[in-house]
Amino acid sequence: MDSQQFRQFGYAAIDYVAEYMETIRDRPVLPEVEPGYLNDKLPDEVPEKGEAWQKILQDFDQLIMPGVTHWQSPRFHAFFPTANSYPSIVGEILSAGLAVIGIHWTASPACTELEVKVMNWLGKLLCLPHKFLNSSPGPGGGVIQSSASESTLICLLAAKAKSLRRVKKLHPHLDEQEIVSRLTAYTSDQANSSVEKSGMLGSVQLRILPADENGELKREALIEAIKKDIENGLFPCYMIATLGSTGICTFDKLDVIGPICQQYNIWLHVDAAYAGAAFILPEYQHLMKGVEDASSFNFNPHKWLLVNFDCSALWVQDANDLTDAFVVRRIYLEDKQENENTQLPEYRNWQISLGRRFRAIKLWFTLRVYGKDGLQAFLRNHINLANLFATLVEQDPRFEIVCPPRMGLVCFRIKGENQKTQKLHDLLMERKKVYMLTASLNGKLFIRFVICSRMMKESDVHFSWNEITSQTENILMNNGTLNGHSTNEIQE
Amino acid sequence: MDSQQFRQFGYAAIDYVAEYMETIRDRPVLPEVEPGYLNDKLPDEVPEKGEAWQKILQDFDQLIMPGVTHWQSPRFHAFFPTANSYPSIVGEILSAGLAVIGIHWTASPACTELEVKVMNWLGKLLCLPHKFLNSSPGPGGGVIQSSASESTLICLLAAKAKSLRRVKKLHPHLDEQEIVSRLTAYTSDQANSSVEKSGMLGSVQLRILPADENGELKREALIEAIKKDIENGLFPCYMIATLGSTGICTFDKLDVIGPICQQYNIWLHVDAAYAGAAFILPEYQHLMKGVEDASSFNFNPHKWLLVNFDCSALWVQDANDLTDAFVVRRIYLEDKQENENTQLPEYRNWQISLGRRFRAIKLWFTLRVYGKDGLQAFLRNHINLANLFATLVEQDPRFEIVCPPRMGLVCFRIKGENQKTQKLHDLLMERKKVYMLTASLNGKLFIRFVICSRMMKESDVHFSWNEITSQTENILMNNGTLNGHSTNEIQE
Repeated sequence: MDSQQFRQFGYAAIDYVAEYMETIRDRPVLPEVEPGYLNDKLPDEVPEKGEAWQKILQDFDQLIMPGVTHWQSPRFHAFFPTANSYPSIVGEILSAGLAVIGIHWTASPACTELEVKVMNWLGKLLCLPHKFLNSSPGPGGGVIQSSASESTLICLLAAKAKSLRRVKKLHPHLDEQEIVSRLTAYTSDQANSSVEKSGMLGSVQLRILPADENGELKREALIEAIKKDIENGLFPCYMIATLGSTGICTFDKLDVIGPICQQYNIWLHVDAAYAGAAFILPEYQHLMKGVEDASSFNFNPHKWLLVNFDCSALWVQDANDLTDAFVVRRIYLEDKQENENTQLPEYRNWQISLGRRFRAIKLWFTLRVYGKDGLQAFLRNHINLANLFATLVEQDPRFEIVCPPRMGLVCFRIKGENQKTQKLHDLLMERKKVYMLTASLNGKLFIRFVICSRMMKESDVHFSWNEITSQTENILMNNGTLNGHSTNEIQE
Repeated sequence: MDSQQFRQFGYAAIDYVAEYMETIRDRPVLPEVEPGYLNDKLPDEVPEKGEAWQKILQDFDQLIMPGVTHWQSPRFHAFFPTANSYPSIVGEILSAGLAVIGIHWTASPACTELEVKVMNWLGKLLCLPHKFLNSSPGPGGGVIQSSASESTLICLLAAKAKSLRRVKKLHPHLDEQEIVSRLTAYTSDQANSSVEKSGMLGSVQLRILPADENGELKREALIEAIKKDIENGLFPCYMIATLGSTGICTFDKLDVIGPICQQYNIWLHVDAAYAGAAFILPEYQHLMKGVEDASSFNFNPHKWLLVNFDCSALWVQDANDLTDAFVVRRIYLEDKQENENTQLPEYRNWQISLGRRFRAIKLWFTLRVYGKDGLQAFLRNHINLANLFATLVEQDPRFEIVCPPRMGLVCFRIKGENQKTQKLHDLLMERKKVYMLTASLNGKLFIRFVICSRMMKESDVHFSWNEITSQTENILMNNGTLNGHSTNEIQE
């Protein structure tokens, strides 16, 4: 493929994406295909000869698109949003075009320096304490990671290495492997599954503590668990607090948890994967009160801040904690510019992989095309639309709100037994016009309705609400005895 | 930004990339900037109002590009190649446009199913044993990971979990943490730094065994290390063999190592990050003889097979080993299609992160646009160019080849003391016209010359060789006493 063909193919792909976005409401959010649909549609081997791009794009349209769930559709209310924006997509093009790997400064100075710059921009936009920023004189700094899962694991590994050093000093007779085997971590049962996974992968015993009735970590439960572990000769090491939990978007209280962590030398990691974006709005910054006591703070611009996956923003108070855990010295990694300072970080030592893409471009483009005003307006629109949906629910006597709407999330259910809500969800999933998930709180099954698409308007809220109410009428007319829909069938 | 502006911005970015590639030889491969060059060129805060894309693209060109090291330049001979191709870039556009997250099948059926399909294609292209493929009836399968580092770590974690279960059965009285603390892993000192890092991050004691004079892992050294560990009450768990080492591209002998690993129940992971691509050429498949005994095999299409970073291909003989180590069950992750089979894998349980991009698109596009013939021709061209370079070196009595050229890598030096080669490298780095790294073998410093760019032609080899010889003349004329260039200054 020469550069002229690339231009044609590239323009066609740009047009395809633009048209996709313009017409996205015309597609059912969930595809009609059955498992294994694609297998027979494609040959079993790589073609011998190269093929024309026109044929490939046609196959993409005719074979792939029918099997796509449309995460960018205004009818998509599942999980949390996954970001997509025009400037971010263009950023991906240029990043792929350069195809540099930011192993160290010399490997592409702009790759490191732009990341430092935009992570400072982003940290300031969130009003994070200055000590977290690369622009501070201290050892704090920000870095782009792939995901919140990875950020949680990275900080767990750093906390583990740090605790090991600390405990070894206190108990020099203890074997290092012995110390590692006695490290413990803490979180609430509202934390994302990736937190549990990080404990598993990092071989650190994780205490999943029951949250209170509001879904917040209980101060007493945390203190009790720490004390019990210490009594049993274990070494508390890591605490993951959640700001905006996956289930019902609750917020742990950092100003309560932080001092406890400080007292016991525990690394406090803040997982604000979804809701962290809202801290660019002054009216929500109180929800991260106490963040100055955190060792690390993470949120995903690739969730709710319009930057395409992957772009997970992680800040630490002391970048040496990362490098102390991650540095491997080899001759081909040495760099002429030996700066271990956070103004010119060796980002490969801040992460798991050696290689890294030039992801700062898409973040930079997105922040500039939207500007602070545009980003704030985007988030406020989502929050307003969630409130509109909550109002519609509240005004309908057949429904109830399970907990107050938070950010773009509204949790609701049909009043009465769980079976009705389950049947409603079954029907919605079968009809494929809207996509939501169910969850449970205190034994009550409910549906999570999340404002996800950046194109979401009031009329889209009404569309989804109409779909919900029309199916609810079917269920209630049949008095909850509708046949043919197992209540156990779908737990999404 | 509306879709019309996106079209304009997108076309402009496509043109930018096409022109960049067309004119890439005009740019010095290494940038002229000094550390911190970007800091004052950009404002310290996100702009309040959104900005026009024309201004942003202009800044990209005027501020970012001067700080870019050109990994795609035919003058770039450092590290190993990082892939970039036109179909792959277009694949990234469509992937970013859909912005789906392949958490499970329902989350986007095509995202899972295309990945299964193209990983089968790729596995067949490499002539991997059928049992590694998703299309086999057994539990084997392939998956796209972010990097070889990540793949090594993932398999280490899986091996760890598997060994834990095995040892626990044999020694039920042993505490799980105790068992984990006694697991050991093995590799040679020619393995990539990421292998050492995976041992650090996975808290498994890694024995880095000295390679023989050819850079291959010694059978006896491995057996001795394993036996010694067993005698000391430790549990051998994981072995990382390298096919195409980073330093001098050596190949461990899988048919020697494999039976040993089988005997001692050790997970054999094959890191063929760079050279694995060459197994699509029949004439190189003998280098992976014995691969049927491996538990996992990894290579990076994003290195030497024209697919943009990130695209690291990992196959395992038994995918249950991954899921057993990685599964966390939460209600919002349950899927209606409960297929834990490798035809429809739950890929989130095969990796560290929960989220994943639709990376199969770019792999699919690249394989189809090039076809098997095109991919083979691409690799053979690189290998031929490396041989051409080696011939030029050999014909010049001032130089010597350190080890036979392998794949796209030629290791050479100025005959005599290391200082001369060091000075040559210093000069080349200062002049910034070509980019290579130095390394050492048996006390001899040498320069690694790697064919990297997909646009590389014979004339480019001559360009780089002329640059090398012209600077060598300067050094030898000055009889090795050139002032002003510290031999310790650059170790790249």
